[in-house]
Amino acid sequence: MNTRVKCKKCEKIAVVRVPYAKLNLCSEHYEEFFERKMLKTIERYRLLRGVEKVLVALSGGKDSLVLLRVLSKYKSVLGVEITGVHIDLGLGEYSEESRRVVLESCRDLGLECYIISLKELLDYTLLELLEKTKRPPCSLCGLLKRYILNTAAIEWNFNAVATGHHLDDILVYRLREMLIGQRESEVLKLAPITRGVQGLYATRIRPLYEVYEWEIKVYSELCKIKHLEKTCPFKYRDEISASIAEMLNKIENKAPGFKIALARRLAKTSLRETPLQQATPCQYCNMPSSSGICALCKLTLKTHGKPMGLILREKLRNIKVNYTENSTAS
Amino acid sequence: MNTRVKCKKCEKIAVVRVPYAKLNLCSEHYEEFFERKMLKTIERYRLLRGVEKVLVALSGGKDSLVLLRVLSKYKSVLGVEITGVHIDLGLGEYSEESRRVVLESCRDLGLECYIISLKELLDYTLLELLEKTKRPPCSLCGLLKRYILNTAAIEWNFNAVATGHHLDDILVYRLREMLIGQRESEVLKLAPITRGVQGLYATRIRPLYEVYEWEIKVYSELCKIKHLEKTCPFKYRDEISASIAEMLNKIENKAPGFKIALARRLAKTSLRETPLQQATPCQYCNMPSSSGICALCKLTLKTHGKPMGLILREKLRNIKVNYTENSTAS
Repeated sequence: MNTRVKCKKCEKIAVVRVPYAKLNLCSEHYEEFFERKMLKTIERYRLLRGVEKVLVALSGGKDSLVLLRVLSKYKSVLGVEITGVHIDLGLGEYSEESRRVVLESCRDLGLECYIISLKELLDYTLLELLEKTKRPPCSLCGLLKRYILNTAAIEWNFNAVATGHHLDDILVYRLREMLIGQRESEVLKLAPITRGVQGLYATRIRPLYEVYEWEIKVYSELCKIKHLEKTCPFKYRDEISASIAEMLNKIENKAPGFKIALARRLAKTSLRETPLQQATPCQYCNMPSSSGICALCKLTLKTHGKPMGLILREKLRNIKVNYTENSTAS
Repeated sequence: MNTRVKCKKCEKIAVVRVPYAKLNLCSEHYEEFFERKMLKTIERYRLLRGVEKVLVALSGGKDSLVLLRVLSKYKSVLGVEITGVHIDLGLGEYSEESRRVVLESCRDLGLECYIISLKELLDYTLLELLEKTKRPPCSLCGLLKRYILNTAAIEWNFNAVATGHHLDDILVYRLREMLIGQRESEVLKLAPITRGVQGLYATRIRPLYEVYEWEIKVYSELCKIKHLEKTCPFKYRDEISASIAEMLNKIENKAPGFKIALARRLAKTSLRETPLQQATPCQYCNMPSSSGICALCKLTLKTHGKPMGLILREKLRNIKVNYTENSTAS
């Protein structure tokens, strides 16, 4: 941006333009703006009502580490305990670096962190499971992460799992579902909050629900948030999602703030629905399922010859919090 | 298309490719395909259940004249009487040509047709009203057409008004509404059918609900349907609608038939809703309103200094059917 423009809040030179708010801000005031926005989102959707302990899902990417930083910074104001959790998928160097950056970030913030190794839980890495199942990577990874995060939160007695889904991703996902109607799990609905069911579903919260991807990127740069620079080796945006994203961007350019307004309207719809109540416990592991057998037990019946849900729960229960780069999940 | 490809149904050379149906067709079989598609739409959404007399809204463009031709061709099979209606907006040469092509088409098909002159109804042409109101052309024109068509159908005892809205227009409209949420009238919901309310709302049917714009164009060319070549002098597609249309086309290219599938899912939503029941009669003219005064009476209170609804109804009641190019509305 034009380096002559002054910050709206002080005398410094502005370094960020926030089009939908018609604000030019210096680094410091952008940081404040961003954090207040997240806190307002938490308030607007009552994300932390009745919540004492939050488990923050950390991939190692900037979205989750920005989320972690802000939650950590305001944990006393918000009245919550913050703990990180990272799933090591066993994707070679990519996973090693992810694990390292997650542990470093938690250590820097003085937060406890769990590291869950997929290999230790299920005897196979994601790569090995992909080979065995021939399923699309994102679909298999999503299934595993959802099951593991949900089960971990329940076993470890957390009230909520926070994830780093942001506005742009959420809108593309929701519109894709609306347009071509392939809804998978109800958990994937990506509302600001998906309220849990005692002992079955952990509450999911998405404090970046109204935050643009670019806002996270700028915050991450200005605040020098350590994060993984590499993108997931399987990252792939299908043409349909790309077309939707392109359209949303064009409308946003024409009408700044459009995405936030849309997300708010979608939130009203999703808050009215109560899909999770319909889930029934899996006959093998008691975790949620739509048909009596959960997705993980169904999967492992094929890959392991037996449902692994109960065994996985048992292993998760015994995992201890990690602090340093060199410790491993036990 | 490749001129060596044979028609799927006969030995002739195919002239049309229908991607979503994976069909190559000769002119004759495309005509059959198109007409059957329209008849199936009528059946699928029960558009003519309990309907004896249909008033077909004719702008003079190809959509409405293709609609008229097919309804007219199958009127005995469908068990309905078909009558045309055209509103002369008073837009100079454009309106004169529209009127002429509408009257010619009806005469060729042996159908009765009403011509309604806006100037005779309200003392002003659309141009004059635009000047007086400073409203955007499409908004004002839409308001007038909706009021006049609805009132005419009720005064003349028709069971349904058929309009030429096609798949592409309907999807852009519905998505625009979903994305930026500026819903005007509930009648504008563009479902395949909007069921009426006795004496208040005429039933609206949209037999081209599942028909692509290109299918209409090809049918119109192959069957040499006379229609106005000029486009409306106010025709304008805003950037947001253009972005939506572009996205829908990209997805359709990737997944042929996507638009039809989406329209069918949207139809389920709109059929579940019963918005028209909520309308209350206007205090001046007894036509539908959301707030006690209908849009036309509200408008004419400003432009004419008095609500014109009742006068307009009276004039409409006295309009006689026209047959030839030279007759005028009386």
